Amino acid sequence: MCPERLLLEHVTSRWGTLALIALLDRPHRFGELRREIGSVSEKMLTQTLRTLERDGLVHRDAKPVIPPRVDYSLTALGREAAEQVRDLARWTERRMAAVERSRGAYDAARV
Amino acid sequence: MCPERLLLEHVTSRWGTLALIALLDRPHRFGELRREIGSVSEKMLTQTLRTLERDGLVHRDAKPVIPPRVDYSLTALGREAAEQVRDLARWTERRMAAVERSRGAYDAARV
Repeated sequence: MCPERLLLEHVTSRWGTLALIALLDRPHRFGELRREIGSVSEKMLTQTLRTLERDGLVHRDAKPVIPPRVDYSLTALGREAAEQVRDLARWTERRMAAVERSRGAYDAARV
Repeated sequence: MCPERLLLEHVTSRWGTLALIALLDRPHRFGELRREIGSVSEKMLTQTLRTLERDGLVHRDAKPVIPPRVDYSLTALGREAAEQVRDLARWTERRMAAVERSRGAYDAARV
């Protein structure tokens, strides 16, 4: 698979999308992100954030304090991705009624 | 899974993305689309186009001629989706070098 395709999959993945959109608002600690996203497991969110960090979209800031504190924020590159993904997600919300009508008509014509 | 999420997955899927971008240029016949996309199987492309047609993004026009002729084109809704997906795909191409540098630095720091 080409590297561009892989990058597109990271930013449009289920948890990638939600993490990027949450981080557009402000930096989050791991637990805050997890609560905000809701249904994601600790393992999946860790993996998602690592992938986005490796791609250079998310910055991980581990503070040398006790207890440990880790903040996640968007890089400039991450902000570019997050804004587009948020716009696409908003578009799906705005157009959902039309899409549902189309699905209903499609299914009705094939009964 | 919520219906918005499903719609986002359809338009950002591997073949969905490529079909939408190809159709932005002009309507295509099935075989033309398949050649343009390249590595997609007939079965996968058929399934992708059906999903996009059901969502109301692609219009399928089967001409009553012999031999059968089927044209695929974007609806107004499909054009909205396709433009955003094309922009996101172009962004991944434009930023790939920065992402590759970040991946290299991430991996080097963890050897």
